[in-house]
Amino acid sequence: MSTIENLLREDLRGRTAYGAPQLDVPVALNTNENSYAVPQAVVDEIVAAVAAVAPGLNRYPDREFTDLRGDLAAYLSRSGTRVSPEQIWAGNGSNEVLLHLLQAFGGPERTALGFTPAYSMHPIISATTGTAWVDGMRGVAGGGVFDLTAESAAEQAARHDPHLVFLCSPNNPTGTALGLDVVEAVHDAAPRAVIVVDEAYEEFARPGTPSALTLLEGRPRVVVTRTMSKAFAFAGGRLGYLAADPDLVDALRLVRMPYHLSSPAQAIARAALRHTETMLGTVDVIKEQRDRIVDTLPRFGLTPVPSDANFVLFGGLRDSHATWEALLEQGVLVRDVGIAHYLRVTAGTPEETSAFLDAIAELPSEHLRDDHLEGQS
Amino acid sequence: MSTIENLLREDLRGRTAYGAPQLDVPVALNTNENSYAVPQAVVDEIVAAVAAVAPGLNRYPDREFTDLRGDLAAYLSRSGTRVSPEQIWAGNGSNEVLLHLLQAFGGPERTALGFTPAYSMHPIISATTGTAWVDGMRGVAGGGVFDLTAESAAEQAARHDPHLVFLCSPNNPTGTALGLDVVEAVHDAAPRAVIVVDEAYEEFARPGTPSALTLLEGRPRVVVTRTMSKAFAFAGGRLGYLAADPDLVDALRLVRMPYHLSSPAQAIARAALRHTETMLGTVDVIKEQRDRIVDTLPRFGLTPVPSDANFVLFGGLRDSHATWEALLEQGVLVRDVGIAHYLRVTAGTPEETSAFLDAIAELPSEHLRDDHLEGQS
Repeated sequence: MSTIENLLREDLRGRTAYGAPQLDVPVALNTNENSYAVPQAVVDEIVAAVAAVAPGLNRYPDREFTDLRGDLAAYLSRSGTRVSPEQIWAGNGSNEVLLHLLQAFGGPERTALGFTPAYSMHPIISATTGTAWVDGMRGVAGGGVFDLTAESAAEQAARHDPHLVFLCSPNNPTGTALGLDVVEAVHDAAPRAVIVVDEAYEEFARPGTPSALTLLEGRPRVVVTRTMSKAFAFAGGRLGYLAADPDLVDALRLVRMPYHLSSPAQAIARAALRHTETMLGTVDVIKEQRDRIVDTLPRFGLTPVPSDANFVLFGGLRDSHATWEALLEQGVLVRDVGIAHYLRVTAGTPEETSAFLDAIAELPSEHLRDDHLEGQS
Repeated sequence: MSTIENLLREDLRGRTAYGAPQLDVPVALNTNENSYAVPQAVVDEIVAAVAAVAPGLNRYPDREFTDLRGDLAAYLSRSGTRVSPEQIWAGNGSNEVLLHLLQAFGGPERTALGFTPAYSMHPIISATTGTAWVDGMRGVAGGGVFDLTAESAAEQAARHDPHLVFLCSPNNPTGTALGLDVVEAVHDAAPRAVIVVDEAYEEFARPGTPSALTLLEGRPRVVVTRTMSKAFAFAGGRLGYLAADPDLVDALRLVRMPYHLSSPAQAIARAALRHTETMLGTVDVIKEQRDRIVDTLPRFGLTPVPSDANFVLFGGLRDSHATWEALLEQGVLVRDVGIAHYLRVTAGTPEETSAFLDAIAELPSEHLRDDHLEGQS
């Protein structure tokens, strides 16, 4: 062991850092970014916003990011569920918002429950904060292997009695949204838990998919996390946020680093939010490409999972990693999410989607499983 | 207890969040900012840098902030001690860098030692990560109450055998720099400790004050933290960093949130670093004002502590908080750092410094201690 390895917290030793490969490829469909560049009108507004704050960068930013909170509250209220600025918290990406939740409500001798496969950072951030992670089970007898029913989720929540529960809707990497009955059942079954509903991909959900924002009223333990990284085409801006009870939001001030959101970060996010319709203007075309992937892959003997997000998990592969490499050789970077026989692909532009589907069509048949079973084993 | 208080980590209950009051006053000398606005040439470069990255904000930033590391290494190497990009780590403010250090090397059943009074975030971030905090002692018999000798520091380090030691040089809030003998003695006396030398105010040090950067070679447990918030007039940009052994730096990737530095954060910091001479152009005039405060305050019966920073701690007050309020009534905001009979004032522009000294001159004599003792009691 090196000197540094010896000094490191015992439970971190031997680990490797999180990270999808950042490769320079023609078609990058591995991190669920929005493939469309920020439109010039929004760029202009962002530049003007930075020009306004840059002379004052010698001063600390507004520690409570009051104006940004107002704008994010207004954004969330668009859908009809009124959210107030006091219900909003934000960070440098939703990862930081999740970190604040785990720092405040998790920690040593506390437990977080999630239902694998889901967003891989949930267990990682839990580990970072010393929170024990319980890997809950998905799967429905006679149904989808990735489905999660209210009954099953509630039973697991009651059994583990965790301090936090993570639910993803739409779920990453499987793509499917949860019914609100699942959130309600978990909430009622885990009386001391903060229920985190990660809605990073909510804007891509199919019509009629409800948001857990509608559950906040009267449930001070429910938190809905969101991000500007996906539909909002703002991954480089690093702005994640959540909506919850004002007292819960206030408690996060105990664990955040003071002045965690820079003046430019606040100004740039606000500039982008002023162009909400423009920034979300690509969502419909991305959803079309997502549905095109779901509709097309079965022709090649592959089994896509229905998706409410901007990506598709597809199974039916003999060896996920071999196929990942074969696609990369054709210049198409997808994500190996560590589920045997499955890969995940982001829905990009029509051209990128065509490049992906063409690369799939080129695959020799030995990439397919013989039995076409839809399963994780 | 409210619902949320019940859910909160036990050790956080009843706490209040860190934060200097953010008040709108004519003369703000409470957070050790650089009082000078960012010059127009630098503003222009910042704006151009954001214009260049804004169209690509739909993509995640470079997770390893490679170019920024190179620029920060070059900046630190200016003083003659060569620092390589692999030795650099950065975060959204030095608080985040300190958090990463405590997440990696602190935690439950681990101990951090610091020497009070020092930067108040050191014990707070330790608590956030569940690291036990040991309040070391300053003071030299027959010398200054805030002095720290190599002998005393090493004895305390050996006795507590901590996992991290925090040394501030120049120290906040007292202003004085440490000799490298103190750092070396602590390093040798605490064989399993990461030695964090917080040099946030290093650029303001009096001539001949050495940086602990010169100690990095051959000492993989020594870390030097820096910030662009103070001399660099970039508090609103939130860019803190450190230099250390490449293996230690690499270990921080295990605890940082992926993509923690946004594309604009990286681009804006790099633009400012391209104008290093301009950004540091106000340091000399600020040091003059600092020395003016130290030279002038004794005329009013006050006892300033010698300073290597952009602020002055001064004693001799009957009731710190009453004087803090009296100065605020005159539009001058200084910092009550919680040391009885002392206040801390930032050295601002000549006009701001005059406003502060005029306000001090206006104070009725009952603000002074009868005995003029220089002590903390």
